[in-house]
Amino acid sequence: MRFISFLEAGEVRTGVIAGDGVIDIAALALPGMTSLLDVIRAGADGLSDVAAALPRTTVLPRPLGALKLLAPVPASGKNIFCIGRNYLGHVQEGYRARGLPVDVPQAPQIFSKPRTTLAAAGDELRFDRNVSDRMDYEGELGIVIGKGGRNIAPQDAFDHIFGYTIINDVTARDLQRRHDQWFKGKGLDQSCPMGPWIVTRDEVADIQAVEIVTTVNGETRQSARISQMIFDIPTILAELSKGMTLEPGDIIASGTPEGVGYAMATPQYLADGDVVTVSISGIGALTNRIAMR
Amino acid sequence: MRFISFLEAGEVRTGVIAGDGVIDIAALALPGMTSLLDVIRAGADGLSDVAAALPRTTVLPRPLGALKLLAPVPASGKNIFCIGRNYLGHVQEGYRARGLPVDVPQAPQIFSKPRTTLAAAGDELRFDRNVSDRMDYEGELGIVIGKGGRNIAPQDAFDHIFGYTIINDVTARDLQRRHDQWFKGKGLDQSCPMGPWIVTRDEVADIQAVEIVTTVNGETRQSARISQMIFDIPTILAELSKGMTLEPGDIIASGTPEGVGYAMATPQYLADGDVVTVSISGIGALTNRIAMR
Repeated sequence: MRFISFLEAGEVRTGVIAGDGVIDIAALALPGMTSLLDVIRAGADGLSDVAAALPRTTVLPRPLGALKLLAPVPASGKNIFCIGRNYLGHVQEGYRARGLPVDVPQAPQIFSKPRTTLAAAGDELRFDRNVSDRMDYEGELGIVIGKGGRNIAPQDAFDHIFGYTIINDVTARDLQRRHDQWFKGKGLDQSCPMGPWIVTRDEVADIQAVEIVTTVNGETRQSARISQMIFDIPTILAELSKGMTLEPGDIIASGTPEGVGYAMATPQYLADGDVVTVSISGIGALTNRIAMR
Repeated sequence: MRFISFLEAGEVRTGVIAGDGVIDIAALALPGMTSLLDVIRAGADGLSDVAAALPRTTVLPRPLGALKLLAPVPASGKNIFCIGRNYLGHVQEGYRARGLPVDVPQAPQIFSKPRTTLAAAGDELRFDRNVSDRMDYEGELGIVIGKGGRNIAPQDAFDHIFGYTIINDVTARDLQRRHDQWFKGKGLDQSCPMGPWIVTRDEVADIQAVEIVTTVNGETRQSARISQMIFDIPTILAELSKGMTLEPGDIIASGTPEGVGYAMATPQYLADGDVVTVSISGIGALTNRIAMR
């Protein structure tokens, strides 16, 4: 199943994709199931209930294009967990761009993006040249935690995953460097477009085989398989949850592959009017136009 | 005024200190004012309303010691913003401990702690030796944002501050090093004790003159004035809010002074039974016992 968040009459609603349209899950009148967090907390039984209710509902699906999409993130308010430098090609290009010898991370490098960075599929991302003129894309697989836990064993990791989404971890390269820790360069408003939806885990047969492609104005910049991660998904969940409780609805951006703009032979940063699309096979495509003001 | 969060019948309540006791602000029956976030959002008018209502209430104050305190953080769910290496003495001791030349930060170094790290004054902090046996304290002034904003000018910074609190940014030194970015070493459950209360800004005549002292089992380890910060409070708010919206209720841990355990001539990490107190003059004292299991 695919779940979206959308805005209606000033309220955040949760929709499930049904054929070509969307049904508000509140219209299914399932007890205690109105928000995305409710669905995530309800686990496999909740998904079965939604699946069973969909063919029975008399509510007409609404066209996806008629809705004001939001990032499909539960309203927990928590920052997005992010894994840095998690594809070898990206680690190598980063050192190459700085003229330094390659040093492969021995453990996941973790930072966060506050919820003020969130934007939806289709949103224009407005950045301020006076804050940074070195905005760059990073296409990433987003992991949505279902069952929470601490000290999650790698072999149990997939039991804790509700589903997947698409994230563009937009980064101000100058601020990332200037502030040493990555938070600031990763933390600008609208620098975390996400969506268009969350695809439940059962719909992705083999996450390792999934392909991720980022294009800028139609030109392919990043292309990799999830299996190329240095730290795979079970390792990410195990390392992140060591001594730190993961909660239902937590989102993890799992790192970006080779091909970012700043590491190109001639560095190329995002320009006003650029259209960035991150596509993940079996999950979807996240497209945003950039506005540099 | 001083505001606390406490737990009652499974719910988070907000109290205001009145004499020797505490009044639940919901009992003041001020319109739209039941949560800490309500109070913060209401600004100066809200504080005036609370101050006016207190002498009129017939509700009896309850003893502070009878309440189950929580970290006095609004339920926004957002991570705590943290500034690293913001006192010259601490920067110097860090490089000395690692045998490296001193490199003073040219801009604030920013990371975050998720809300799962929160603990209250008086809570026993339980850490797992198998996760880290190098737990260390960092006493810090906590800044609580009142009025939100983006691109806050340094000269307007104090208009955006609701009040202050005390934070111990407990850090797993081995994980901080191992994961390169600081998030993981700063992110363990219960590693952000905070409180006991938020003191409103008007109660602190000169924040620069305020003293911060950290003791372990009564022995002074850290002692500094807020004026010793490398990046002062106006600079922190200006840099943090550049292109990134700060919201009412956001918390900023403003960095720790010289005297952490790992930089002592013989590094000394927190041990089972240690009692850590962070005191800030005019604000209060935050005490927690450490349990290493």
